[in-house]
Amino acid sequence: MKLSPYETIDDLQRDGLKIIQNDRWFKFGIDAVLLSYFCQPKSPKHIVDLGTGTGIIPLLLSNSYPKAHLTGLEIQPDVADMAKRSVALNKLEARIDIISGDIKKWSDHLRKGCADTIVANPPYFKVGSGVKNFSDYKWLSRHEVACNLQDLFTAAQGLLMPGGAFYLIHRPSRLADIIEIARAVHLEPKIMQFVQPKSNQAPNLILIKCVKHGGFELKLHAPIIVYDDQNNYTKMIYSIYNQAKLTVFSD
Amino acid sequence: MKLSPYETIDDLQRDGLKIIQNDRWFKFGIDAVLLSYFCQPKSPKHIVDLGTGTGIIPLLLSNSYPKAHLTGLEIQPDVADMAKRSVALNKLEARIDIISGDIKKWSDHLRKGCADTIVANPPYFKVGSGVKNFSDYKWLSRHEVACNLQDLFTAAQGLLMPGGAFYLIHRPSRLADIIEIARAVHLEPKIMQFVQPKSNQAPNLILIKCVKHGGFELKLHAPIIVYDDQNNYTKMIYSIYNQAKLTVFSD
Repeated sequence: MKLSPYETIDDLQRDGLKIIQNDRWFKFGIDAVLLSYFCQPKSPKHIVDLGTGTGIIPLLLSNSYPKAHLTGLEIQPDVADMAKRSVALNKLEARIDIISGDIKKWSDHLRKGCADTIVANPPYFKVGSGVKNFSDYKWLSRHEVACNLQDLFTAAQGLLMPGGAFYLIHRPSRLADIIEIARAVHLEPKIMQFVQPKSNQAPNLILIKCVKHGGFELKLHAPIIVYDDQNNYTKMIYSIYNQAKLTVFSD
Repeated sequence: MKLSPYETIDDLQRDGLKIIQNDRWFKFGIDAVLLSYFCQPKSPKHIVDLGTGTGIIPLLLSNSYPKAHLTGLEIQPDVADMAKRSVALNKLEARIDIISGDIKKWSDHLRKGCADTIVANPPYFKVGSGVKNFSDYKWLSRHEVACNLQDLFTAAQGLLMPGGAFYLIHRPSRLADIIEIARAVHLEPKIMQFVQPKSNQAPNLILIKCVKHGGFELKLHAPIIVYDDQNNYTKMIYSIYNQAKLTVFSD
């Protein structure tokens, strides 16, 4: 496997899974691992990852759901190409498709109602907020330049079959936006779980499961606490990482 | 002070404040105390409590905000009468008005935009859910018979001046409803704090502050944990109760 400059191969320590990442681009973080843990569909047949980046989520979920087919949609062609090479490196071409395309034009690439499960670890920040990154790749991965929440939910709504579920990780500051937009497209919020850096700190991430045409009843799980009082990972994080069999990740 | 059958006088252990309660009716619980703690307006002039019940919240807030005038609206005439007698018992008639009236007909009793602060500890359950209580008073206090979330937010919207805040305690299962209804009447959710029975348990209460015509940015606080691993109240609950100077409450 020939790598481009700045690319490295990292071992996901999960049944030999490996991933190619570029030191200058957005690398996968705890968010992707938490979302892969939170996404627990029953017997999924087709999982679509909207904005797949390195392809980390399809790679992890392919391992959790050996009978599922997975599709990752990524707008940045160079990043999609790298994800494709990660899929090839793991000999998963028959199970994982990486498509270089725009979430807003999902219907150019995928059939309406083709998925039972959608996942997304989208850009968290509105355009205009935060400091612009040195790299356009990172900038696009972190800001709603190419795709905002409305675009994301519209795509999820179109791609999901009735009863299908959309699993999303985002910032709690966007919670009201998420709920308003989700309801407007009949993706009913059903399960929420907050992630707190420490037990006495405010949540900085939120995991949400929405069900297409689901009933009006929201269930909350106990929050995930990342660090204990001694700044070590909590048992819960170790157990999530054990499940994912990853030993190292960057925040 | 002559009491009706089943009535008792409880000492709130806060600068001599006392409250009359009826053993057969809904008695104030941790919710009212948590909401009184969460409600932290700056220099409020007029605080309105929608569905005041025993009057516990105006009583506690009259103590925290000595310059504020307070109004409690209560639909059940017998309960409103008891709250009025609690106000008289504390010689607070000049500062606290208890009005026997329907939240849906708030404009029969109060002027549009008259309040800078609204609080509500409303019925949590939709009609048709849960088991019917032996007492109609309890039933009305717990179920959305007389007033649902839409009625509540409509009243809060009408009563609040621009920039005024609505502080609500409710169940997390209704969070999506709350956010959707709040945004529809331009009461923007600004602060949220969950309450968990224990640190490893899911939240069972949510505190929300909405601001009339507020900007789109939601801030979460660290959750309030009620019991520690040994089933004792946590330091946080003791500090909230110390602030309220209450030593005993029923869950």
